[in-house]
Amino acid sequence: MSTLTLPKSPREVRDLIRSNEWRGVTSGAAPGYVQANIAILPRDVAFDFLLFCQRNPKPCPVLEVVEAGRFEPAHMAPGADLRTDIPRCRIFEDGQLVGEQEDISSIWRDDLVSFLLGCSFSFESALVNAGIPLRHIDQGKNVAMYVTNVETTPAGVFSGPMVVSMRPVHHSQVVRAVQVTSRFPSVHGAPVHVGDPGALGIKDITRPDFGDAVEIRDDEVPIFWACGVTPQAVALNSKPSLMITHAPGNMFITDWRDEDYAVF
Amino acid sequence: MSTLTLPKSPREVRDLIRSNEWRGVTSGAAPGYVQANIAILPRDVAFDFLLFCQRNPKPCPVLEVVEAGRFEPAHMAPGADLRTDIPRCRIFEDGQLVGEQEDISSIWRDDLVSFLLGCSFSFESALVNAGIPLRHIDQGKNVAMYVTNVETTPAGVFSGPMVVSMRPVHHSQVVRAVQVTSRFPSVHGAPVHVGDPGALGIKDITRPDFGDAVEIRDDEVPIFWACGVTPQAVALNSKPSLMITHAPGNMFITDWRDEDYAVF
Repeated sequence: MSTLTLPKSPREVRDLIRSNEWRGVTSGAAPGYVQANIAILPRDVAFDFLLFCQRNPKPCPVLEVVEAGRFEPAHMAPGADLRTDIPRCRIFEDGQLVGEQEDISSIWRDDLVSFLLGCSFSFESALVNAGIPLRHIDQGKNVAMYVTNVETTPAGVFSGPMVVSMRPVHHSQVVRAVQVTSRFPSVHGAPVHVGDPGALGIKDITRPDFGDAVEIRDDEVPIFWACGVTPQAVALNSKPSLMITHAPGNMFITDWRDEDYAVF
Repeated sequence: MSTLTLPKSPREVRDLIRSNEWRGVTSGAAPGYVQANIAILPRDVAFDFLLFCQRNPKPCPVLEVVEAGRFEPAHMAPGADLRTDIPRCRIFEDGQLVGEQEDISSIWRDDLVSFLLGCSFSFESALVNAGIPLRHIDQGKNVAMYVTNVETTPAGVFSGPMVVSMRPVHHSQVVRAVQVTSRFPSVHGAPVHVGDPGALGIKDITRPDFGDAVEIRDDEVPIFWACGVTPQAVALNSKPSLMITHAPGNMFITDWRDEDYAVF
């Protein structure tokens, strides 16, 4: 089902997901509302993971933490249920993908702590609203993502390189792109680098580690933002006994507007 | 010893403290550098406290968390030692003040987690630099602080009202005061309220709950900022078996400049 026919309220979209009337990639669903990356981990590693996010706020901007024993993100989406309201989840055991599930009620445990992390959809809307075209969206592709040589700041069992996403921007719009995304520190915020892929240890910009390559034209500058794949990659690095994430693109839709998270 | 004769580098000031050559209120020491509120708690409540800070970033802006077994704030002040480099600490047991110590090495335990939280000294410097006079500084007083009827968002064992500080600002400078402090979200940031003490449940503005009263003139507006006393008050509310804090005004001096924490 196309997302274009979805209702526009976050709660209505979540209700359709919960009742299995619609599930899918949430790009374009409930436009203007914040969507969240999801990481669900056992309580015994929750402090380390929260600390990892605190130390690495650009790749891991925390929107909400739902404590063990609960599954309602009462701040971001009162009444929602993380067990049923994410379109599709991935289940990892000891760092290995063991399956995907639409509804995770059957595997839910009372010791699971849920992290809602900011997602680039919010700042991409801001860029498009500011008149800065995004090629991967225009071409219906996934954004290009690269593993860098920039180490995150470790915390407990969690460590690993930062993953970035890249968007080519016309040189006349680079300053504006920095300004626009700087307004949204809770959803990755300002770029981590402008211009030189080599400065981040990226050897071949035409071969992203995740997502799809896009052309960089002669009058364009590649801009790099910290990417929400980072916390997932870092968490899996540590091989937790259980980790549940959203499936790529299948985000949790919150009740807050992108603009609520703008600093000015 | 007056702080006016202190060296200007944070490390030099910390070295004087560690060697017992100087201890005291750090206002004016190492000008331009971030000073931190300190809260040290046992590991068993550390996740809840970090989560409390994440949920209440205005009163509880986390600068760094030093994990159990360590006492060096490696991010904010490499080489420093929290056991010896805070001018004076307060020791609380089961929520009760049981003593003050300059050097806490003798009571240090391997299960203690240390929180460095932003302090209003940073945004006060920004206000003064912007030409906005602060009466309590001009009069050599402590800032006026009030317990409000605004509840913080609880986390685990931690809950309680937000404490705010109040500074009177000439009506022509209110907008500028909001703008200037909005640049510093890591050190309490934008005001939580402008104008009406009653809106925060403050019954008598002339009687602060902590600190000293200051006059509010007819052409001035009271502006309220979230205050770093909040996390301390909330933590003590929960009567932790042990909690160590800095003594009032006896902050930990970091190696980062205030301007490093400006968002723009």
